[in-house]
Amino acid sequence: MENKTVKVGLVGFGTIGGGVADILLNKKEEIRRKTGKSIELVKICDKDTTSDRGVKIPDGILTDDLSEILRSPLDIVIELIGGLEPARTFVLDFLKAGKDVVTANKALVANHGPELFDEARRLGRTIAFEASVCGGIPILSSIASSLQANRIESIDAICNGTSNFILSQMEGKGADYDDAVKEAQRLGYAEANPSMDVDGTDAVQKLTIMAQLALGVKTDWRSIPRTGIDIVKALDIRFARKLGKRIRLLATAKRAAGGVELKVSPTLVPETSPLAKVCDAFNAVQIVGDFVGPVFYQGLGAGRRPTASAVCSDVIDTALGRTRITFDALDLWSAGRESVPVVEPNATTEKAYLRFKVEDHPGVLAKTTGVLGRHGISISSLLQESDAGAGADLIILTHEAPAGKLADAVDEIDASSFVLEKTVKMSVRD
Amino acid sequence: MENKTVKVGLVGFGTIGGGVADILLNKKEEIRRKTGKSIELVKICDKDTTSDRGVKIPDGILTDDLSEILRSPLDIVIELIGGLEPARTFVLDFLKAGKDVVTANKALVANHGPELFDEARRLGRTIAFEASVCGGIPILSSIASSLQANRIESIDAICNGTSNFILSQMEGKGADYDDAVKEAQRLGYAEANPSMDVDGTDAVQKLTIMAQLALGVKTDWRSIPRTGIDIVKALDIRFARKLGKRIRLLATAKRAAGGVELKVSPTLVPETSPLAKVCDAFNAVQIVGDFVGPVFYQGLGAGRRPTASAVCSDVIDTALGRTRITFDALDLWSAGRESVPVVEPNATTEKAYLRFKVEDHPGVLAKTTGVLGRHGISISSLLQESDAGAGADLIILTHEAPAGKLADAVDEIDASSFVLEKTVKMSVRD
Repeated sequence: MENKTVKVGLVGFGTIGGGVADILLNKKEEIRRKTGKSIELVKICDKDTTSDRGVKIPDGILTDDLSEILRSPLDIVIELIGGLEPARTFVLDFLKAGKDVVTANKALVANHGPELFDEARRLGRTIAFEASVCGGIPILSSIASSLQANRIESIDAICNGTSNFILSQMEGKGADYDDAVKEAQRLGYAEANPSMDVDGTDAVQKLTIMAQLALGVKTDWRSIPRTGIDIVKALDIRFARKLGKRIRLLATAKRAAGGVELKVSPTLVPETSPLAKVCDAFNAVQIVGDFVGPVFYQGLGAGRRPTASAVCSDVIDTALGRTRITFDALDLWSAGRESVPVVEPNATTEKAYLRFKVEDHPGVLAKTTGVLGRHGISISSLLQESDAGAGADLIILTHEAPAGKLADAVDEIDASSFVLEKTVKMSVRD
Repeated sequence: MENKTVKVGLVGFGTIGGGVADILLNKKEEIRRKTGKSIELVKICDKDTTSDRGVKIPDGILTDDLSEILRSPLDIVIELIGGLEPARTFVLDFLKAGKDVVTANKALVANHGPELFDEARRLGRTIAFEASVCGGIPILSSIASSLQANRIESIDAICNGTSNFILSQMEGKGADYDDAVKEAQRLGYAEANPSMDVDGTDAVQKLTIMAQLALGVKTDWRSIPRTGIDIVKALDIRFARKLGKRIRLLATAKRAAGGVELKVSPTLVPETSPLAKVCDAFNAVQIVGDFVGPVFYQGLGAGRRPTASAVCSDVIDTALGRTRITFDALDLWSAGRESVPVVEPNATTEKAYLRFKVEDHPGVLAKTTGVLGRHGISISSLLQESDAGAGADLIILTHEAPAGKLADAVDEIDASSFVLEKTVKMSVRD
């Protein structure tokens, strides 16, 4: 792509697509001045060719015919349609047609990474995907380049803005979960059906991508233990506060004996930790490297403008040749590459926050703690609150305990007649 | 540097040099596996060839003869001797001898950037300098690459770890400035002569580098208004706390009408802001881009291992060719390139924290506030404390006011007979 203009196509002209078009059309001269490269958005493809996206598009650019993208002499195609199909087929078609690809599609990368990256390498093409994780935070380029001299020891990420916004609402206003979800929907931070956000699916897919890049873990995101924020109640926020903690949805990858531990869970973090300060729709990532120590990033993880910033940075990197170097250097998700082992979830240990809903009568506390004791789980603190005729909420914080024993103990307690609801478990950080 | 081993020389084998040698010698295989490139440290040059640097060096690598570096078939030379001369001459010699350069020397880049970068370009070589600003935080690569689609609106940096450590000591333990400096020296966070750190010189040089990369400002660091933390007293920390603020040494670059405003000053920041949470020897940078919004970075800004992480990342980027692309794309400090205008310091506005040391008798308060009023400066809050026979400390927070009028008013007040010490001024953020 030496001195010629780099021609770009955009497929999927929704919210993010509007932001990307805004940058590529309106900052063309600024980008040329800063990078020495002319980058031109020449085609946009979307089923909907009439809605206003808040950006003025020159005539003849917008089409609903995908074959125009494939036939045009484009150097780079940006995939912003989201989801698995037809995005997967489209990306394969773009690569076969000789185009480099930029995508913001975390589901696509998390699910079809090995196939797509192998195909890109076979065809001598590249795929860039910074925007697929944490929107505007340059976390993938940090892992792939800036921190490359380090052995990454751990990643803790608040990478779902919807969940963090809902937790912030519950924390700041004492709102119930359902009301906080409604408020998030009203303000555009949650979709009409927010299940992929609040059940941890979105976070675990992003974790899969980060863990591959940073720790060499190749794993199916479905196999990673995952709890979403849909189990969090106002009383958890209140109890956490009594314990000097805040609840955040953490996606965690950590080196341990025998491999890497992976998990997504609402987690009680100390109120003084940087992660506790991450509020509203912000995302944050804390990475620990063996030389660099802890590095903390915070920024907007979603939305039209921050995501467009990341997409366009990838477009520029691809135009300049930086993506090629990074893509070649990192043996990304090759189907042929062996994974660093993942520690069997039950073999990990954790400090747990357990909320039991039990009958409010004498002996129940002794029975509950007795089961924990028999499983070798020791208790670091305990809070109980009667719920006016509807039983009692019993909160127990454990010391570090094997996850398998915690699960067995909770299963045994949940099978007891004095338990009124399924027990809730979250992780706890000191 | 296609498939051959990349040969590296290191000049300056002190604390950081030891960390760099540790990575390049002991992680050679790990780096080759991650990047596909063999990078070999083949020469180390230092006057001292006998001291133990905590890293085992193969025989025949260490020399005190610089000409061995110039004569060896090295691809990259790392400059870690620090200071201006002979570092400047050495770097010019390395470039002339056909070597790419990696440096952690912020004074060198801030003072001789235009000369060195022009010479590198003339000779077809590159200079990488991530480690010169904020140690392990990948701030320069973020500016130069990850955030490249943005127009950067502002930078706020806590970029001097020594100053931040001293402020943290004063804040946490109520220590006096002098005691905090001694503690910092005892723990190795401050040098025997810490003047370049505590008077803001180090921070302003780093600001110069960031402002050039992010905002296109070419300026002599000596022309930037600079106040260090050596004016901060325990009572300022105490008063700030009463106002819901913390004091941090901020290096700031901000777009404004007529150009870019630049400043280094102890600054009262709200205790809820991310900058207020940055403690001990940590560094942090908050960048605001027009699309990405605010992005916040925090990490260790100095020390053997974090700085070595940044240096070695630059070495790998240079070996892989990423540095070449970035260096070519950014028209860095070329002597021929025009600067974005810098706003004349007196033409900027700010909210100020003013500490007057005045005689403790009736009428002094009225006289002081009278001078401020005559200069059109309005007061947002006022605190006074008698100092048992040694006068009174009068603290005034102003509303937003022109810096020139603030300076004039303070000069007039300082010339008054009732003033016992030179007035101290810091910046204030809402």
